[in-house]
Amino acid sequence: MSVTAAKGFTASGVAAGIKENGNPDLALVVNNGPRLAAAGVFTSNRVKAAPVLWSEQVLKGGAVSAVVLNSGGANACTGPLGFQDTHATAEKVAEVLGHSAGEVAVASTGLIGIRLPMDKLLPGVEKAAAELTAHGGEKAAIAIKTTDTVHKTAVAEGAGGWVVGGMAKGAGMLAPGLATMLVVLTTDADVEAQDLDAALRAATRTTFDRVDSDGCMSTNDTVLLLASGASGVTPAADEFAEAVRTVCADLARQLIGDAEGASKDIRIEVVGAATEDDAVEVGRSIARNNLLKCAIHGEDPNWGRVLSAIGTTSAAFDPDQLNVAINDVWVCRYGSVGEDRELVDMRYREVRITADLSAGTESAVIWANDLTADYVHENSAYSS
Amino acid sequence: MSVTAAKGFTASGVAAGIKENGNPDLALVVNNGPRLAAAGVFTSNRVKAAPVLWSEQVLKGGAVSAVVLNSGGANACTGPLGFQDTHATAEKVAEVLGHSAGEVAVASTGLIGIRLPMDKLLPGVEKAAAELTAHGGEKAAIAIKTTDTVHKTAVAEGAGGWVVGGMAKGAGMLAPGLATMLVVLTTDADVEAQDLDAALRAATRTTFDRVDSDGCMSTNDTVLLLASGASGVTPAADEFAEAVRTVCADLARQLIGDAEGASKDIRIEVVGAATEDDAVEVGRSIARNNLLKCAIHGEDPNWGRVLSAIGTTSAAFDPDQLNVAINDVWVCRYGSVGEDRELVDMRYREVRITADLSAGTESAVIWANDLTADYVHENSAYSS
Repeated sequence: MSVTAAKGFTASGVAAGIKENGNPDLALVVNNGPRLAAAGVFTSNRVKAAPVLWSEQVLKGGAVSAVVLNSGGANACTGPLGFQDTHATAEKVAEVLGHSAGEVAVASTGLIGIRLPMDKLLPGVEKAAAELTAHGGEKAAIAIKTTDTVHKTAVAEGAGGWVVGGMAKGAGMLAPGLATMLVVLTTDADVEAQDLDAALRAATRTTFDRVDSDGCMSTNDTVLLLASGASGVTPAADEFAEAVRTVCADLARQLIGDAEGASKDIRIEVVGAATEDDAVEVGRSIARNNLLKCAIHGEDPNWGRVLSAIGTTSAAFDPDQLNVAINDVWVCRYGSVGEDRELVDMRYREVRITADLSAGTESAVIWANDLTADYVHENSAYSS
Repeated sequence: MSVTAAKGFTASGVAAGIKENGNPDLALVVNNGPRLAAAGVFTSNRVKAAPVLWSEQVLKGGAVSAVVLNSGGANACTGPLGFQDTHATAEKVAEVLGHSAGEVAVASTGLIGIRLPMDKLLPGVEKAAAELTAHGGEKAAIAIKTTDTVHKTAVAEGAGGWVVGGMAKGAGMLAPGLATMLVVLTTDADVEAQDLDAALRAATRTTFDRVDSDGCMSTNDTVLLLASGASGVTPAADEFAEAVRTVCADLARQLIGDAEGASKDIRIEVVGAATEDDAVEVGRSIARNNLLKCAIHGEDPNWGRVLSAIGTTSAAFDPDQLNVAINDVWVCRYGSVGEDRELVDMRYREVRITADLSAGTESAVIWANDLTADYVHENSAYSS
């Protein structure tokens, strides 16, 4: 499954020794064609890791023959030497596979500000190339984990014998303009680069871009979509876009479900908004309110903190017309006390907050997590 | 000291029974003139508590004869009935003191979404009026505490026999556009309302507005400055402004030092910015980065998280020209690894982060706190 669910792809995942604990840390995904079309979406953080700068250039060509991904180091804030490391990694993959380095995308994840151990990474590329198989998708998904507790894969099947499959990693620094994530999607549909790009941008806009686990935007986010054309089928554009969106939504939900230290997954639906942008702005403001995130952790339906978060936005609303439901109980009506908060059952991991702005008909869903002592612990100890 | 350091003021603080634990919860500050000039700054949250809506109207008149403040309930998101409660409170103060209700400011703090127990609050006003003295400033400061562990007062003396004194409360929901705070400043300088307003706005812009403990903006923030003119001295405008700024900076620093669950006070200085707005935007982005706040809690000089926070802003900078110091050790130079991070000593409560954008000569200081398990605990249990 994963990135090898689609025909035309091989993959592998190996332990190259980048991680000191000996866990798998290097993945390779190869497109064997006949088509090498590709599209990519990258972090909007202006401080971009070397592999992001490199892969952005590669994707401009619209063709990717291979993606090499490593965990154990982000290769971010490493200066010109860090960029040379990424370049050397792509050259090594090209040399081993007999490809052009200009068609090799690179993605890295891990700590910022530390050079990668190239003496281990480059031999790891040879090892990964030797282990490439058409069933290697799962091993690849495992090799890109950092603090993830589980590996993440998803597949959608299209009518007529084509599929979209993918893998993702991400558990912290999850916020929009892409969560901290590396995602590789593959398809054997026969789709040109520009159509891949349209489908991918439409999908990420309402999936990965609406995950806001902890408000922190990464330097390394990368989402790639590779098409081999091996099924020989060219699906209708909307059908293909829907399959890509389905896989992205599935992976995004898995990211939230595995967020660092989280005990709750919070689905925030903003309805009655004047514009979709308003709905997204309000959803993000609620998603990032630390006091609310603590309250949800404590299973406290503290709707006052929802209102105070809405109040910091520029969205169209009248404070006296705001309604808020938590797990379908409308605890706030007309900006004031509504149904009895004791009716709210918050025992389960998924918590649903509905904020009705009473200002229009647009809506958006943002996914977030609660704030826990475990999150603090994990992130106060991560680099030490 | 506190609000009664200035001549012409009396104050008191009593236990009215609003708080179920019997702690002091009602404060009264009275301006006995001869002048009744006043200025106020309020939360920029669009969801405003009833006392904020009321006091904004009162301050338009430029005269305040008394301020009544309660802890134990924010009277926010309480609808038209909540506004009637605030109105009734002002009327009661006016009746007891023989003033006009239109010159009585009201401020409240505590939980959102709960009506105040007026059967306790109104008798409390009578009790507080009976206990007014020229030495009651400290009792007033104690009565406005919520989760504050200490009460907060400050005084600055002007040349020629006038003073500015003040009290503040605030320990959570501390963020700009005012931290969650109630602040009352008094002076016996003889200053007109419009000059008070200018001095107060200038002072809050670089003090309370640059406190960002937890990124959460309150519905109730109120900062009032009352002048009695009792000293008979009208100071030079810049001298008066400096005294107001000194008291505000002192109180703001006390708020950060007593923030809920915090173990570190973080002074973030952004230098080399193209504009002051850029410096403030970058400072806030750093201040609100949960991953960095966790790292500081763990005494981990994780400069990569500073860079990733800077990268989310629209400020002018080149990623390769960013420098970051933590406690004066330049751990990041030219966007990459700088001095040895092992040199950073983070044992003390105050942590200094300096971010040099290398893009100009402007600067700003933002104060923040770390993110701790205690913060999570305190805020997941607060309303239950």
